[in-house]
Amino acid sequence: ATHKLLLLAGDGIGPEVMAEVKRVAKWLEQAGLASFAIEEDLVGGCAYDAHGVAISEDAMVRAKGADAILLGAVGGPKWADVPYEARPEAGLLRLRKDLQLFANLRPAICYPALADASSLKREVVEGLDLLIVRELTGGVYFGEPKTITDLGNGQKRAIDTQVYDTYEIERIAAVAFELARTRRNKVTSAEKHNVMRSGVLWKQVVTELHARAYKDVELEHALADSLAMQLVRWPKQYDVIVTDNLFGDILSDLAAMATGSLGMLPSASLGAVDAATGKRAALYEPVHGSAPDIAGKGIANPIAMIGSLAMALRYSFNEGAVADRIEQAIAGVLASGKRTGDIAAPGMETIGTEAMGKAIIAE
Amino acid sequence: ATHKLLLLAGDGIGPEVMAEVKRVAKWLEQAGLASFAIEEDLVGGCAYDAHGVAISEDAMVRAKGADAILLGAVGGPKWADVPYEARPEAGLLRLRKDLQLFANLRPAICYPALADASSLKREVVEGLDLLIVRELTGGVYFGEPKTITDLGNGQKRAIDTQVYDTYEIERIAAVAFELARTRRNKVTSAEKHNVMRSGVLWKQVVTELHARAYKDVELEHALADSLAMQLVRWPKQYDVIVTDNLFGDILSDLAAMATGSLGMLPSASLGAVDAATGKRAALYEPVHGSAPDIAGKGIANPIAMIGSLAMALRYSFNEGAVADRIEQAIAGVLASGKRTGDIAAPGMETIGTEAMGKAIIAE
Ligand SMILES: CC(C)[C@H](C(=O)O)[C@@H](O)C(=O)O
Ligand SMILES: CC(C)[C@H](C(=O)O)[C@@H](O)C(=O)O
Repeated sequence: ATHKLLLLAGDGIGPEVMAEVKRVAKWLEQAGLASFAIEEDLVGGCAYDAHGVAISEDAMVRAKGADAILLGAVGGPKWADVPYEARPEAGLLRLRKDLQLFANLRPAICYPALADASSLKREVVEGLDLLIVRELTGGVYFGEPKTITDLGNGQKRAIDTQVYDTYEIERIAAVAFELARTRRNKVTSAEKHNVMRSGVLWKQVVTELHARAYKDVELEHALADSLAMQLVRWPKQYDVIVTDNLFGDILSDLAAMATGSLGMLPSASLGAVDAATGKRAALYEPVHGSAPDIAGKGIANPIAMIGSLAMALRYSFNEGAVADRIEQAIAGVLASGKRTGDIAAPGMETIGTEAMGKAIIAE
Repeated sequence: ATHKLLLLAGDGIGPEVMAEVKRVAKWLEQAGLASFAIEEDLVGGCAYDAHGVAISEDAMVRAKGADAILLGAVGGPKWADVPYEARPEAGLLRLRKDLQLFANLRPAICYPALADASSLKREVVEGLDLLIVRELTGGVYFGEPKTITDLGNGQKRAIDTQVYDTYEIERIAAVAFELARTRRNKVTSAEKHNVMRSGVLWKQVVTELHARAYKDVELEHALADSLAMQLVRWPKQYDVIVTDNLFGDILSDLAAMATGSLGMLPSASLGAVDAATGKRAALYEPVHGSAPDIAGKGIANPIAMIGSLAMALRYSFNEGAVADRIEQAIAGVLASGKRTGDIAAPGMETIGTEAMGKAIIAE
């Protein structure tokens, strides 16, 4: 089958790492391993520069029509002063919301060859393999009111609203429990029920769903602040962590950084499975951001972006064998000692974005 | 002068570590180094057990009359099912709000003798000395509405509201800038202006205050998720970090854990200076929590609690020399190799709470 793939390279290092995805996709096609109908469009600051919005209606139509979307990264200091509604991140947030990509899966894996790249001790991260399941279409990211009001007298008031309904918590918790069953069968649910009403409801809904349908999975509850600590102290105690949009934002970045493999980690944002077609909307992107400090230098690590293509092949296109080949090629390149700067131990030789993409193809 | 000190030992390990504060305070009085009028009361779960509320009106009156409050810790699984308004944390939150303790100072210091207790590599934490300045009376902790509503059909909706006014951001930022001047002259302000309106206002107010009154201090802005990562990667890049109530909760725990000195770190929560009396309301407490898993075993580390007394002597009682003596005694005990379990390297001999308190007095 030909897979409809939309590439949204975005800003910063996005286009550089996406170029390597195109290289890999082309190679897969030439080798007869997969067939893609690739479209490309803009999102983020580059879309604002072109159209005055962070994502055009045209791009939204393409996004809805695609079997899967690969996104690079959005944002950067260049767009610090654009109107709030048009800031680069608004493009990504609109994709998440309009496509109802409520389940964000962020694996944090420590690649054995990279254990020394972590700021954590080797024994703390070696063999680490956890999965953060982050709720992505609710919470303080989208709740209303979300306003800044002028109170006069030089005073303004800013309001953000965290809103969670039972069904939103239930569907993300179900994703976490299902995934835990395919892994080490343990779910840790994180909130702040001691200060937030949404935390109280979160804990209650997760507990009830567990008792009703997932008693075979081990469930533990943690306060988000304490979980952040434990992620630094001994992350291997976790298997699947399920949490809300804002805590998930912080905790997943933290877990990724702890592994020392930040430039390596892809993520998936998934919608619900459509009962009629069996399909689900899906967007794949690196966990890392647009890294404006190194953009344009050709030194960014393309592995998380290429790994996002592998994830799309596995989860959206049902091409597990091809995904395996890509992932094995990545492992092989690492084993052979090839490194971009972000994952190199001090003193190691490094290679650029393009060389890394080519090395993966060669493998 | 006789200092009016209110001790609220609270729950879990609170009473055990507070007992060592009493031992030290008694010794200081016997040695003629300080004079205290000590009162004690309940807060948290123990107050609920006694009075059905997490802090009694009586205790609130005492708190308002004291020159400084020392608090142990609140909370624990025992009170998981008490009504939301009466949960242990509500006592602490009421103290913060009613006494308007808006400035929470949380130093994260890596004691040289303890660098190996961190899960981070020695070179990453050795010499680390940063200060988190957390806004403590606003944000999502106290904003209204804060509700759970029954929507029918088995659905509930939980709402929490993050509210920040200009003056609240300004006064906490001013504290951060002032403190930076006494340190390494750098402030990092953390928010999520890319998704939160309160983040937009936060960044704007901090920027304007800086331009108006603190141009001599270096100011940098960071997104809270990215800051969490950087705190793990290379925490020594920071001096003073200023942030809101919720981000501050997570980031300060994270920074403390990274130092390896969690059981060592005191914190101060301060109100505004009263123009008439020159006094400010103040509550001092360890950064660590009630640790129900080790409560009652006599093994908790009392150093953060004793350090909180030293902080009170320095900042509320103007007894810097006495505070110095306590802090030097703590350093001396560590240098002599005495350790409670939380700060011992694997294989080291450990001592209990009481032995640690006595060792500090002996020094
Ligand atoms: C770019 C930004 C809006 C986004 C978020 O906050 O969700 C990013 O940090 C992420 O984690 O995907
Ligand atoms: C006990 C709890 C309410 C409190 C908070 O969330 O502020 C604690 O975590 C802290 O950091 O002081």
